[in-house]
Amino acid sequence: MERFWRTIEASAAIGGTEAGGICRLSLSDEDKRMRDTLAGWARESGYKLLVDRIGNMFIRREGSQPDLPAVLVGSHLDTQLPGGRFDGVLGVMAGLELLRTLDDRGVETKRAIEVVNWTNEEGARFPPLTLASRVFAGQAELEWALDRKDHAGKTVREELERIGYAGDAPVGDRVVDSYLELHIEQAPELDRRGIPVGIVVGAIPMRGMRIEVRGERAHVAGPPMHARKNALVGAAMVAIAVNDIGNAHEAGGGKTTAVAINVTPNLPGIISDRATLFIDFRHPSPGELAKMETEVHAAIQAAAQRSHTDIEVAERWGNDSFEFDRDLVQLLRDTAARIEIDTFEMRSQAMHDAYPMNAVAPSALIFSRHADGISHNEKENMTMDDARVGITLLINAVLSRANR
Amino acid sequence: MERFWRTIEASAAIGGTEAGGICRLSLSDEDKRMRDTLAGWARESGYKLLVDRIGNMFIRREGSQPDLPAVLVGSHLDTQLPGGRFDGVLGVMAGLELLRTLDDRGVETKRAIEVVNWTNEEGARFPPLTLASRVFAGQAELEWALDRKDHAGKTVREELERIGYAGDAPVGDRVVDSYLELHIEQAPELDRRGIPVGIVVGAIPMRGMRIEVRGERAHVAGPPMHARKNALVGAAMVAIAVNDIGNAHEAGGGKTTAVAINVTPNLPGIISDRATLFIDFRHPSPGELAKMETEVHAAIQAAAQRSHTDIEVAERWGNDSFEFDRDLVQLLRDTAARIEIDTFEMRSQAMHDAYPMNAVAPSALIFSRHADGISHNEKENMTMDDARVGITLLINAVLSRANR
Repeated sequence: MERFWRTIEASAAIGGTEAGGICRLSLSDEDKRMRDTLAGWARESGYKLLVDRIGNMFIRREGSQPDLPAVLVGSHLDTQLPGGRFDGVLGVMAGLELLRTLDDRGVETKRAIEVVNWTNEEGARFPPLTLASRVFAGQAELEWALDRKDHAGKTVREELERIGYAGDAPVGDRVVDSYLELHIEQAPELDRRGIPVGIVVGAIPMRGMRIEVRGERAHVAGPPMHARKNALVGAAMVAIAVNDIGNAHEAGGGKTTAVAINVTPNLPGIISDRATLFIDFRHPSPGELAKMETEVHAAIQAAAQRSHTDIEVAERWGNDSFEFDRDLVQLLRDTAARIEIDTFEMRSQAMHDAYPMNAVAPSALIFSRHADGISHNEKENMTMDDARVGITLLINAVLSRANR
Repeated sequence: MERFWRTIEASAAIGGTEAGGICRLSLSDEDKRMRDTLAGWARESGYKLLVDRIGNMFIRREGSQPDLPAVLVGSHLDTQLPGGRFDGVLGVMAGLELLRTLDDRGVETKRAIEVVNWTNEEGARFPPLTLASRVFAGQAELEWALDRKDHAGKTVREELERIGYAGDAPVGDRVVDSYLELHIEQAPELDRRGIPVGIVVGAIPMRGMRIEVRGERAHVAGPPMHARKNALVGAAMVAIAVNDIGNAHEAGGGKTTAVAINVTPNLPGIISDRATLFIDFRHPSPGELAKMETEVHAAIQAAAQRSHTDIEVAERWGNDSFEFDRDLVQLLRDTAARIEIDTFEMRSQAMHDAYPMNAVAPSALIFSRHADGISHNEKENMTMDDARVGITLLINAVLSRANR
């Protein structure tokens, strides 16, 4: 575990912030350094490194039957702006520790095991999130993904080339035995229950929306109140209504977030004529989620009327409720029982690379407890002991699966 | 008037937008071209051009008694992002037309008349607004003003030097006889009353505030609703409350605006921990304005409590109710009566360069009617006839004052 912890610390030093987090946006100079470091570790151990056209890195420890589809284990090394030290990093470093542990013990597996570092999971630089695993899973077009732009107008394509990670391998388009991901929970459920590891049986459904508000520019000292069409006010009304909907559904586990807002012209002296609001909402029950969505639409109508603006849902995304692979979940259960680890079965509330992967390969997700469930925050923290429990479960389950 | 209108059209071509407005931020390349054009016109007519250290341009037509303090006439040539063709431009071009008209008729005045183009009135590039007239009036420090930065981090100082308008003349620090400004109303009162010109007797009081909201970053799928501290939600609550306060005071002429919002990190997947909200509010009655301010503070408290965030008023500005110079207002009244112009006496709701100037020299403000009172909008429009009425009043009043 000391070796594993050193990889966590090495990662925390690349783009590390004063407050103890990491600022390592996808395809930035920091991301390149982190990738180079990971590639160096792979080289030292003699693993093969494959980089695909969208920069996903696959570190392969060969199996005794190389023609069998490989078991993939991974997560991501990009962070939020800034994010914590464990979000994503835990899963990739756990995969590396898995390979090294097999080496230590001279264990050979039937199937190859590949550790994956997915490009741009966070979407903090290039929206949407889980961009590259979606392409791998055939849920997004490669060319479309390569054309995504950051705030400065730079594309994924340009930045991949600039940092030297525009690989040759096709994205996806190959048979994979299975995909397993270890990730911090990003919610306080495990911490509250005092259980170090969660077996994620499925995902709760969620919806995201981009809402566009159109008003009319005017001088702030100009029109009387009833004649104003302030786009900021229309967007604020929707934000509050969405928050209220979350409060109303809290008892059943519903959550809503007014995530981001961009107002034009957003300048002194001018009533704004455009606002873009990003919201998301989720609920364990698909039926309740549908109700929440109806309520959001009603709130948008009411806000438009009350603010004299035009408001529309310009984009809508999300996922329905789904189950992770039954056999893999059972394998995690059995493995935990065998090695006597206390686990809790739960559903994931946040998107991970395992979501798209689940559509093309049997997939599973393990959650690790971390302090107060705080994530997407520089204060994100977990103990080495908790990491050890998650990694132990991962290693044992992958070992079983790789010898199948 | 055709000559005057050609100056309006020449201005509209410098930074002109497809929608018929102008995008000419202070000290931009477009501003430089506009300033060069104005300076060229001054040269052609043999007027002296003086540029002060903050780039204010003074075009002087000498009087027969050059030692007497001059009469200043002016406004600004910078625009919003984008703004209309008349906001500010009307007043500067009216001043130029005044000087040319005196030349045409061979009229000599006792006092010199100077046409002023104030730097950065809008504040759209370098907040706050009326930056350079404040310095001229001794209400802001020159060095502080020169250090103001735009979004890209460029300072007023750097940009003045870059475009060649960092003059040698001290800012202010001289006796001025009086200051007269012709400006579009930027509100629909004159248009509604069918009167082309308003004599502005004073300013209604207004307040502006920068409000800072502190929440806590977390994953959008993380904390349950009651544990969230979403800064965006706190700011949105204040925005709506401020708008409601405006509605409640509309009958008495109160107005409020949620003007601008900036949220951090404003990224997918993260609950925001910081939001800055700019608001302003105004009311013809100082007593009612004070009530509105009390209500705004109460709304901030309530929003902080309801959103679990910390909210504070980080900055506060504005002006109290004040009167423009009694003698100048009377001169405008008498002049209008003499030349048989129908006028309406009113109070200004929006800040103009005449506000700070009124503190250091007898000042007056004339409003011109424009279509529907629409301003800070590319649709801003007025008729040549209405411009003529305003300019005629300005010329006659300034002529009287310059011979005093």
